This record gives sequence, structure tokens and C-alpha cells, in this order.
Amino acid sequence: MVNIAVLGYGTVGSGVVEVLNVNGDSINKRCGHEIQVKYVLDLRDFPGDPIQDKIVHNYETIVNDPEVGIIVEVMGGVEPAYTFVKEAILKGKSVCTSNKELVAKHGAELLKLSKQMNVNFLFEASVGGGIPIIRPLNQSLTADEIEEITGILNGTTNYILTKMSNEGSDFNSVLKEAQAMGYAERNPQADIEGYDACRKIAILSSLAFGMQVDFEDIYTEGITKITEADIKYAKAMGASIKLLGSSKKEQDHVYAMVAPMLIKPSHPLFSVNDVFNGIFVRGNVIGDVMFYGSGAGKLPTASAVVADVVDAAKHIGTNIMTLWSSKKLELSDIKRATHRFFVRVAANDEKTKEQIAMEFGQVDVIAVPDMKEEYAFITMPMSEETYQQKAEKFKNIVSMIRVNF
Amino acid sequence: MVNIAVLGYGTVGSGVVEVLNVNGDSINKRCGHEIQVKYVLDLRDFPGDPIQDKIVHNYETIVNDPEVGIIVEVMGGVEPAYTFVKEAILKGKSVCTSNKELVAKHGAELLKLSKQMNVNFLFEASVGGGIPIIRPLNQSLTADEIEEITGILNGTTNYILTKMSNEGSDFNSVLKEAQAMGYAERNPQADIEGYDACRKIAILSSLAFGMQVDFEDIYTEGITKITEADIKYAKAMGASIKLLGSSKKEQDHVYAMVAPMLIKPSHPLFSVNDVFNGIFVRGNVIGDVMFYGSGAGKLPTASAVVADVVDAAKHIGTNIMTLWSSKKLELSDIKRATHRFFVRVAANDEKTKEQIAMEFGQVDVIAVPDMKEEYAFITMPMSEETYQQKAEKFKNIVSMIRVNF
Repeated sequence: MVNIAVLGYGTVGSGVVEVLNVNGDSINKRCGHEIQVKYVLDLRDFPGDPIQDKIVHNYETIVNDPEVGIIVEVMGGVEPAYTFVKEAILKGKSVCTSNKELVAKHGAELLKLSKQMNVNFLFEASVGGGIPIIRPLNQSLTADEIEEITGILNGTTNYILTKMSNEGSDFNSVLKEAQAMGYAERNPQADIEGYDACRKIAILSSLAFGMQVDFEDIYTEGITKITEADIKYAKAMGASIKLLGSSKKEQDHVYAMVAPMLIKPSHPLFSVNDVFNGIFVRGNVIGDVMFYGSGAGKLPTASAVVADVVDAAKHIGTNIMTLWSSKKLELSDIKRATHRFFVRVAANDEKTKEQIAMEFGQVDVIAVPDMKEEYAFITMPMSEETYQQKAEKFKNIVSMIRVNF
Repeated sequence: MVNIAVLGYGTVGSGVVEVLNVNGDSINKRCGHEIQVKYVLDLRDFPGDPIQDKIVHNYETIVNDPEVGIIVEVMGGVEPAYTFVKEAILKGKSVCTSNKELVAKHGAELLKLSKQMNVNFLFEASVGGGIPIIRPLNQSLTADEIEEITGILNGTTNYILTKMSNEGSDFNSVLKEAQAMGYAERNPQADIEGYDACRKIAILSSLAFGMQVDFEDIYTEGITKITEADIKYAKAMGASIKLLGSSKKEQDHVYAMVAPMLIKPSHPLFSVNDVFNGIFVRGNVIGDVMFYGSGAGKLPTASAVVADVVDAAKHIGTNIMTLWSSKKLELSDIKRATHRFFVRVAANDEKTKEQIAMEFGQVDVIAVPDMKEEYAFITMPMSEETYQQKAEKFKNIVSMIRVNF
């Protein structure tokens, strides 16, 4: 028997308990041990809830109980999660977490500590909710050098962009609707400004390249500036606007960014809609692979956490090797990253067109029937820096979206 | 250092050697051991090839060498692969294979034997080429009861169907083109009749349900009867025809089949085109996930084989638990499987329509402008048996395709 403790009885924590109840028999069979929830840590009491007798308010009870082999940390936020997790590992307990803030910030250190203590620190649920991506990156894509990892990593923003595209609605009204339906939080900043996706691509990049990628170093842009008009243009191009977290290795440089991008149907992420997430990986021998599923939600996330618990239980006494050194990977300056840019200018006179031709050279003009007051075009590939220098000369650029084709 | 031997220096075998050469440094780092190819077994010699000194023609040299820790079996076919693999495991060597015939037929037995001998039998490359699916099923979806697993499992037929759909070409000319380009074999039966997909869905079903699913029990239909006209109708419905290998659990019944099916854009497999494969899994807590990538090809397949070698090297002395009992899973009679049927009848007179209405009840009529001599419709959901009974009364049914929406 393996005793576990769940830190935090919120959405994911109660989901973990539910999954263990619903699928307990098959989970125990797959695990080779019976998994039992011994404690649930929460500030609140839950009178009437089947776990009410397991609730403790004091972490010391849990961490000092030698019977507890695995800690499930699903509280979120860096503190006190970091202090709790570190203490657990130092006491010889394995930890399974869904906490992206914790993993992005302290993943390398906690993995190193786990190795020293011969326990495991697992975090499948920290990226892509239920989608298996951390374990495949660690254990299935081991024959490859990863050249690119690009994901739709945030369900809320994907839902908003999908809705805007399907219904022609504007950003603010779709956001309100998403909040009403529980798909967006009341304080949606972390989602819509790209901060959530940024932590996730930092984790994936660290694993893909085996070194610490600091999320603070990643250029991050959200979706708040995307308008109905942008989406009209995207449709006219047969393209779609997605918030992508992406890191690419070019020669010895790694670029990482989070930004809305235009993609075409030939891209495997094109059909990842609504609250679904998708993670695209390009390896130098495997080619292109993609992982798709529910990026959030109580049960999908809990499924990933419990799968980690099963793995931790199967590996008691053995550290599962994970390559993520605390050595910092210096990302290349995003100014040098090269792509095409979709640009809308609030003028359609010959003089503006001439100026654009002079500044940007050859461009692909994108015409949308009812946007006659504007001039919209896609540039040839150029660096971010070159684009900025050219764009500065125009006062009337309405929007710019990077192009992934 | 871990010495390996590669059985068979064909496409995949030479790919394995290439991947180890190209990515050797990072593979050894991830593995924690240096992997070295000690032998390559082949009937032929390869004068001038860097591995020429490693070629042996006699398996006994390999299996009796205690320095060889891992055998890579990439010969294909049941014999002599089965005899070789069994002997290797009995000698305490782990085996990594891409051989779907071997795994479908003897997987359960070889897994059991590996457990007894405390070695590993790994077969990631036997399904979906490079796509990580076996390891995710075994190690990531452990918190779930699998309710459905449906895949586009054969790249050749997917290429043919995609081409037919994009270019409006007929089956035979696309097949010839695919053969010329090396996407289809000169003897394409195993692909186009669905036999290859059948073995793969048998392997996936065995892992998903933890019991032996015999491929001989799976109802299998290929794509040779799909015509340009069928594809015209599919397009008119906004749907696409895909060769799907599928098994579904309904209450305590498991149905499995391989057949062309109509799917709509909302299905995650809809955009899996050309030679790509995709595997869709529905779990009772994780919901829907999908894995996408190159289902065949020298390097993607070799990538999966080498990832297995890394895993085997990391687990020397430890058996990785895989739930696949040799107890036979009795599939439910396909006659009881229920779905909708798309049917084309070679008559468009009122009497035929009346007869159809009388026999099939309410149907959705599908009209295509230039097919005025036919009457085409989709039935309400009914069992295969009920459909057959009704269909027998019509002598002029031109085609029937099962509907997945």
C-alpha cells in the first residue's frame, strides 16, 4: 500500500480524490500497489464530504508522517508550495504536482534534489492539463534533438479566439461570456496576457533543451489587441489566429516567444479549437509529432496527476532521470528571430502604398471587401528588429500579427 | 556501455544505426550509458558500409554473447523473429522491436517471459511509426479506463484517400502513383485490405484493455471499394473518408473493427492527412486525447526504436510493468455494433424512395448535383445486423460506408 497526501482540496485536488475513487481498481492494478489518500491539506473543513476525516490544517502532520510516500501538490502558486515540496523531498517523499508556477521557477532545483534523495518529482499536469507531454518528452522523444516545440497552451485564450472566429464577436464580449461559463477567471490577466502560456513554454523548452529556460526571458504578448477585423483578414487568407508559445533552435540559437500567430490548415495546430490544447514538436529524426487534448479542467488535469502518482508508486526507490540542468539557457535576442509579418495600415492611398513598397519591398497584399479604408499586407521574412525599424516610420499601423507560413 | 545488436539491416535497421550515429551524444546523455552497436545480423554483406565489420550471418554469435544487453529486432514477420526474440529474452537480454506481426501474435507471451526474466520487451515502433503511443498508453493514461481507441494507423491508405479527395482521382491511379513514389508496396494487399491496420488496432486494444485481442477476430474491411463518387458525397457532407481501426467499450462489451468511415471536421482525426497517422483515445476521466505524427518512414520509425533502446538501457535489471494478459478478450459480435450508415442506391425513382422509407424509416438524404441517377442517404443509428437485414432487400446498393457522426 502507498499512502498519499493531497495538498489543496480545490478543483484539481478534489478531482484527484474523485479519479482515485472512480478508477481505483484499475489504477491499483496498473500500479501494483494500493493507493490510499491518508491526508488532505486545506485551510477549510469539509463537513459531510467523504474526505472530512482526512482533512488536516497543519503540513507538519503530513511531512513528518513516515507512512506518507507521495505528496500531491495542487495548491498552485510558488509559496508555500515550494517550501512544502522541498521539505517533502528532503524527507524522502516523491512529489506530483500540477503547479506550473512552481515548476517553471524551481523545476531544475527540485529535480536535482529528488535525484539526490532518490525520489521523484513529477509534473505532467503542469503543462497541457491531461495531455501526456512531459513524460513523452522525457521518455519517448529521447532519440531526437528537438528543433521546435510550439503549443496552444492556454484553453481560455483558445476558446476566446475560436469564438471570435466562429461568431465574428469582439474580444470583450467573448471574454465576458467565457467568464460567465467558467472558462475564464474573473481576473483573466494571466490567461489573456499570455503569462500562463509563457510559464508552460518555459517548462517545455527547459525539458526539450535540457537547460533552465527562465520564463522572465521569454517575449510574451497576449491576445487583448486582436480584433474582429484581424479575424476577418485571417479568414480571407484561409488562416487562423492562435496564441502560440514557441521555442525554436536555429543552429546554436534558441528563440522563445508567446504571441498570437497566423497559421494555415496545413499546420497540425490549426484544428485545435475551443478549450483544447495542442503541442507540436519537431525532432531532427522523428519529424513532426503533435499531442492534443483537454488543456485544463478538473478531471483531465486530475488524470495526469494520478498517472504521475502511479508512476511515482512504481518507482519507489528509483529516480526517473529527467534532463533539466539548472544551468541557464541564454535565449537569443528575439530581435533576431525571423518570420513574416501581417500588417494593417489605416490608409489606402497611393502615397502610403508607395511608402510601404519602398520600406518593405515586395509584400503580399491581403484584400477584404468591406475594409476599403485600410491597406493590409504580409511582408517577406525579416527579423523582428528589421520589422520594428521599418514599422516605426509609419504612424498609422493598426495591427501586426506574426505569420507562421 | 551497453552493447546492442540489430537484427535486419533493411530500412528500419539502417535507420537505427543512422539515428545512433547522428544523435549519439545526446542519446548517450539521456540514457546515462554509451550505446554501441556490436553486431548487425543480415543474410547479406555490406561491403563499404561503415557497419560491414559488424555484420554477422549467424544469430548464435549474437545471442550467446553475454556482452550484448539489448536486441533490436527489425526484420518483420513472425518467423524467425519470434524464435530469435524468445531466445534473447531467455538469455536475459531486453528486446526492442518494430515488428507488428510479432507483437500482435506473441506480445502477451513475450511480455510475460520478459517479466519472469527481469528484462524488457518494448515495441513503441510497432504502431504509429514514430508517434509515441505505446508508452503513453502504458505509463501516461494509467489513471483512466479507456473507452475508445480509434486510429488512422496506415500511412499508405491515408495517402491514397487524401489524394483521391484532393484531386478527385480514382483509387487505382492513385495506388499506382503511390507505388511509384514508394508510399505503397508493389504488393499492397496488407495495406489496402486493412490487414496492417488490423494488427495495429489489435495491439492497441490489447494494451488499452489489458487482455489479448486476437487480430483474427477483428472485422476488417479495406479501401479498395471506395470510389470517386463516394468521395464526392463525402465532400458534399463536409466529411472525409478515413480508414479507421477502432475499438470501443460499451458497458462490458468491446467491439473492434477496421473499416473506412465518414468523419466530420469536429473529429480530431479529420485533419490527419497524407502519410500521417493519428491515434485518438477517449478515457473516462481524461476525455479525448490525440497523438499525431509520421506513421512510417525510416527515420521516424528508427526514432521510436532508439527511444525504446534508451528506455531498455535505463531499465537494465528492472522490468517495466505492462498490463497485457494472455487471457483472451472475447470481442462482441460486430453484428451488434451500432452506428449510422451512408448508403448509395443506383435508382432515383419514387418507388425506390418509398421502399427505402418503408425499410429504413427516417433517413438524411444526401444530394450531389451530378449524381442524379442515384439516391443516397444516411440511416438513423442501427446495428450492423439490422442494417444487413434491411440492405439485403435491395439489389441495387452501390456502396455503404459507416458514419462516425
